[in-house]
Amino acid sequence: MRVISSELANKIGENVHLEGWLHKKRLLGGLTFINLRDRGGIVQAVLKDKAEVDKLKGLYTGTVLALDGVVVKEERAPGGVELHDAKITVMVPVSEEPPIEIDKPLSHKPENLDTLFEYRSIGLRNPTEAKVFIVRSALLRLIREFLYKHDFIEIQTPKLVANAAEGGAEVFKLDYFGKQASLAQSPQLYKQVMVGVYERVFEIGPAFRAEPSATTRHVSEVTMLDIEMAFIKNHDEVLDLLQDLLNDVLSKVWQEQEQALKELKATRPVLSPKFPRYSMRQIHELYGKANDKDMSGEIDLTPDEERWICEYAKEHDGCEAVFATDLPRSKMKFYHMAKDEDSAYSADLLFRGLELATIPVRENRYEVLVKQMAAAGIKEDDPAYKFYLQAFKHGLPMHGGCGFGIDRLTEKVIGLGNIKEAILFPRDINRLTP
Amino acid sequence: MRVISSELANKIGENVHLEGWLHKKRLLGGLTFINLRDRGGIVQAVLKDKAEVDKLKGLYTGTVLALDGVVVKEERAPGGVELHDAKITVMVPVSEEPPIEIDKPLSHKPENLDTLFEYRSIGLRNPTEAKVFIVRSALLRLIREFLYKHDFIEIQTPKLVANAAEGGAEVFKLDYFGKQASLAQSPQLYKQVMVGVYERVFEIGPAFRAEPSATTRHVSEVTMLDIEMAFIKNHDEVLDLLQDLLNDVLSKVWQEQEQALKELKATRPVLSPKFPRYSMRQIHELYGKANDKDMSGEIDLTPDEERWICEYAKEHDGCEAVFATDLPRSKMKFYHMAKDEDSAYSADLLFRGLELATIPVRENRYEVLVKQMAAAGIKEDDPAYKFYLQAFKHGLPMHGGCGFGIDRLTEKVIGLGNIKEAILFPRDINRLTP
Repeated sequence: MRVISSELANKIGENVHLEGWLHKKRLLGGLTFINLRDRGGIVQAVLKDKAEVDKLKGLYTGTVLALDGVVVKEERAPGGVELHDAKITVMVPVSEEPPIEIDKPLSHKPENLDTLFEYRSIGLRNPTEAKVFIVRSALLRLIREFLYKHDFIEIQTPKLVANAAEGGAEVFKLDYFGKQASLAQSPQLYKQVMVGVYERVFEIGPAFRAEPSATTRHVSEVTMLDIEMAFIKNHDEVLDLLQDLLNDVLSKVWQEQEQALKELKATRPVLSPKFPRYSMRQIHELYGKANDKDMSGEIDLTPDEERWICEYAKEHDGCEAVFATDLPRSKMKFYHMAKDEDSAYSADLLFRGLELATIPVRENRYEVLVKQMAAAGIKEDDPAYKFYLQAFKHGLPMHGGCGFGIDRLTEKVIGLGNIKEAILFPRDINRLTP
Repeated sequence: MRVISSELANKIGENVHLEGWLHKKRLLGGLTFINLRDRGGIVQAVLKDKAEVDKLKGLYTGTVLALDGVVVKEERAPGGVELHDAKITVMVPVSEEPPIEIDKPLSHKPENLDTLFEYRSIGLRNPTEAKVFIVRSALLRLIREFLYKHDFIEIQTPKLVANAAEGGAEVFKLDYFGKQASLAQSPQLYKQVMVGVYERVFEIGPAFRAEPSATTRHVSEVTMLDIEMAFIKNHDEVLDLLQDLLNDVLSKVWQEQEQALKELKATRPVLSPKFPRYSMRQIHELYGKANDKDMSGEIDLTPDEERWICEYAKEHDGCEAVFATDLPRSKMKFYHMAKDEDSAYSADLLFRGLELATIPVRENRYEVLVKQMAAAGIKEDDPAYKFYLQAFKHGLPMHGGCGFGIDRLTEKVIGLGNIKEAILFPRDINRLTP
């Protein structure tokens, strides 16, 4: 019966059977030490018998092995235990060095990222690297648990759509049995009509943006958490939900993944139960004053303002997450609700200097929506929007929600420098493989 | 404070505030009864006051309302309670009849499906219809819980890929910044290389098939559960996992969603702890004998054989799920492992007459894999497969897994007649909206 390396601390003195990958081999004082990697981590084995050592001749890191031996307490070894008198069975021999060195963490410097992605599935065999996606998987699990508890149901909406221009960004187009289809930029229209059925829905899935930008923030395929909730009384209710979600998920991920996060050199987030809420105008003023700049001509927040306000809030409010509220009306989408002449009921959730989500109230009054769509160049009888307007005509209560970037969240929770490092196989203007 | 209709049974005699949609209005013995729908279900309210009744003049199903009244026990009403002396606040007026009648379950006859999908988000406002996707959401949640418990981590792999022909079916193609990209038919290659890191991975996400078929089984966008597990000893281990998953998830979904499933007229599944396993050859023989037909020329199972063997197993083995093992080698993919000259280590999971998943062992020996790829017309130095072969060259243990159709599972658990009824907004050769 196979035992996983993480179970060994409870099996001292026992004979065990391990299976995994040869991770490292070295000679020390006439003894051969090998590190075996499995899904539980790394375990060190000591080979005394020359016949056993010979089995590894010409074999390299990655060789799949079984080890049979006795578990011995050894505080200097990883995990505090060691395997003695190990007998080796080679299961899959590997006769070449790996293309990148994986027994120490890989370089994540900007100039080395291409190498990182080119050899992604080999590089992740470094146990520290691997923890990035263990943390990401845990974040997704905890987000779902929070939303289930809050009466949301998970839906799947189509990624092949007739019209995907609602987000404003460039869309990928393709031939769909003779018709033109787009790849969905978000489940925006679909999730909104579904609150007319379930009140509270969410989706976690891919979204596609054909933006030809090559920055640390842009990729052409992202994983989005889309949330939509109906019967809200005001904008603050939606912000409260997002704030509670982030507080819950980040405190739990640090409870259960503390060791992984520390190994990744992540910093424990500083969050307050209620996130500070500053209007765009306030942020422009605060930033202008502190930096002796005139921001009165700015509409959006600049990337530097996003960084600055998060630092300001950390110091001033004890919170690394901030809501930038009252986003400019001139930038709002047709499906957002205007607040007054200047601003919309819409906010950005900023965390550690990066926008994670935009959180608006939706326009739910049919006549106003039709006007806003017309202003955006969409006709009331456009067949691609028929199902959307239908739901409003037949009654949608006030609702709001967000599109929340899972890749960006993972990046900022761990403290990576580029969104692509938080994605298993990232896609950008230059990268379609692996 | 808003109360949800499902909470009313505990609030008899109390004054409550409800919000929801006007579902139905009728006059009976001089009194006006209205049904209010919210995410908890339907509650009946009695209006005595003419001023209240007048507020609903000219308003139709879908109107968003608040109701304030007192909760009274009434066994003949839905939920066993009724709201008396209700005061109405109209939140969003609806001045048109809904395009389809939603106060009784909709027709799912083949000739009415187009209407069903055309008005999907309105039709689902019928509380029974809505339960299809409550059950689907529960199935996905329970599947994830099972897999987390079994040490799997969830991954997201790209849907925009350089080469998606590994599944054999037609692929959608698109321009990707001047290169040709395909939409992924499955995470096949990606999930396999990831077992070299995590041993056990799964993904739940969309998959795309440009198959120009118009059947009850085919759609162009599906939700797939992809599972992959390493360090298996034999094919049976993977089959056991799938059998345990289905047993666990279906017994739990019937525990927690019994009322919804009964309302949908679903039948409780008959499953044994160990699913019967019949080889393809055995099924051909059993079916041929029982139906007095010569099946010796058949390679695949015919749809009629799939139906028949499930009925046979239900009667003979007390199980509506069957593994059809030893699938023909002539039909196996390049990444499957051959068993002998005739057959592969591959099985179909059949449930209630439909194939839910194909469950093979993967070929993990580099040299054999390269040969099988060559036979499939893929060169060893094809750049789209570089990352794939890399992982094998550097050591992948024996592994296996499956692609499991979530839409098909939902269809068969509930007893729908067409896969499209299990998809919120289905996509087929004729349908790209809504």
